[in-house]
Amino acid sequence: MTSDTVRKEIAVEFELGGRRVRIGGIAKGAGMIDPNMATMLCFLTTDAVIEKAQLQQALSLSVEHSFNRITVDGDMSTNDTVLLLANGAAGNVALQAGTEDFTRFQRALDHVTLSLAKMIVEDGEGVTKFVEVQVLGAANFSDARRAAEAVAKSCLVKCAWFGGDPNWGRIMDALGYSGVRMREELVDIFYDGLCAVKGGVASQTPFQRLKEVVAAKRFQVTVNLNLGPAEYTVFTTDLSTQYVELNMGE
Amino acid sequence: MTSDTVRKEIAVEFELGGRRVRIGGIAKGAGMIDPNMATMLCFLTTDAVIEKAQLQQALSLSVEHSFNRITVDGDMSTNDTVLLLANGAAGNVALQAGTEDFTRFQRALDHVTLSLAKMIVEDGEGVTKFVEVQVLGAANFSDARRAAEAVAKSCLVKCAWFGGDPNWGRIMDALGYSGVRMREELVDIFYDGLCAVKGGVASQTPFQRLKEVVAAKRFQVTVNLNLGPAEYTVFTTDLSTQYVELNMGE
Repeated sequence: MTSDTVRKEIAVEFELGGRRVRIGGIAKGAGMIDPNMATMLCFLTTDAVIEKAQLQQALSLSVEHSFNRITVDGDMSTNDTVLLLANGAAGNVALQAGTEDFTRFQRALDHVTLSLAKMIVEDGEGVTKFVEVQVLGAANFSDARRAAEAVAKSCLVKCAWFGGDPNWGRIMDALGYSGVRMREELVDIFYDGLCAVKGGVASQTPFQRLKEVVAAKRFQVTVNLNLGPAEYTVFTTDLSTQYVELNMGE
Repeated sequence: MTSDTVRKEIAVEFELGGRRVRIGGIAKGAGMIDPNMATMLCFLTTDAVIEKAQLQQALSLSVEHSFNRITVDGDMSTNDTVLLLANGAAGNVALQAGTEDFTRFQRALDHVTLSLAKMIVEDGEGVTKFVEVQVLGAANFSDARRAAEAVAKSCLVKCAWFGGDPNWGRIMDALGYSGVRMREELVDIFYDGLCAVKGGVASQTPFQRLKEVVAAKRFQVTVNLNLGPAEYTVFTTDLSTQYVELNMGE
């Protein structure tokens, strides 16, 4: 059983020490359909020569920056799976963490996992908007993540996006209840780089221009807490009447 | 600006050492409408004779068991207010914590706050179901609360209720991702006392009977983790297409 509507697949090819190396991946998943069945599955393969422990290290980091940063409805599945298989056919010198080649491999793997993760969000059940929520200037990493996740999971924020409303009061509210360190008078909020809030108050940007951003199927929301160096990004969606209809059972 | 559709008010009268004492309360709130305005307001009055510190103690406990246990959409307002005023007109002996009279006052106050809290949930924006989520048998208080809140805030669980679907797989899933100590094979789930899950698997109860429970406007979901002594209750709602429509802006 699946509610996927598009194929989610990607492959990249790059060079390591004169050898061509490939990473390919496929994924399925479009919401937490049925907890008795696997819901998000991702199978990755590579022909790189790499030890198991090093492969696990690269994959863990990559998943942290991709599949662990997406949310459709906040309902995690208990059955999510990401597998990465390497057969060594590329014949490169075995990859060692800390080397330039390892970094190149990591970057390619990150591209594959992030691409697949985004495909899952975009094909999410009842999704009409794909939104990148970026938090900058947080006091620390944990605050950056909590702030981004609070905005990305807020029912009210997501309903506003569904309705094409560049509502920033609800974003401020989610930041407030997330419990992170913030000073309201320092907060800036942008829609696709257009300033909606400057220093905690409405900017001079005409509302109509902000509405045009939110009318699109994809846009970015950036929150700058202007307090510290930490940042975090979450990929999320709107909350639509279609989502509710798809999940109201039978 | 308010989206309240009903009056939320209650008054009780009881006796303390031969004196009639009264507690009255009014509240407003039906969802987090606009973060720039107060959204949940509650004003309580009593004619009891009671010191400020003791009154605060009684109120804090009471709020913990009422307004802090309700959720409509998981979006806290930053402007919620509960005020309790006492003028001492009842002429009772000043209430002292730890006495029987204090317990009686606490019980009356709890009745007032819980009644008002339930009225707010029932009148929530786009609410078609009022659901009491009770978790029993948790290893400790913190687990009981996390488990109950995970179920009460799950978009998927709430969508199922909106559709009249006594879905228990989604409840198991929410319990699973809540991170609390649990053993799937020990979990029992009941809808209004009717067993849906026994020891982690579907019970013998005919599905049609469970559907009849969820068809009602009010019902109770009880989860017994059968692991320890702790319990917690949250009052919540379904997630309806009307909720999304009411909150999609402008």
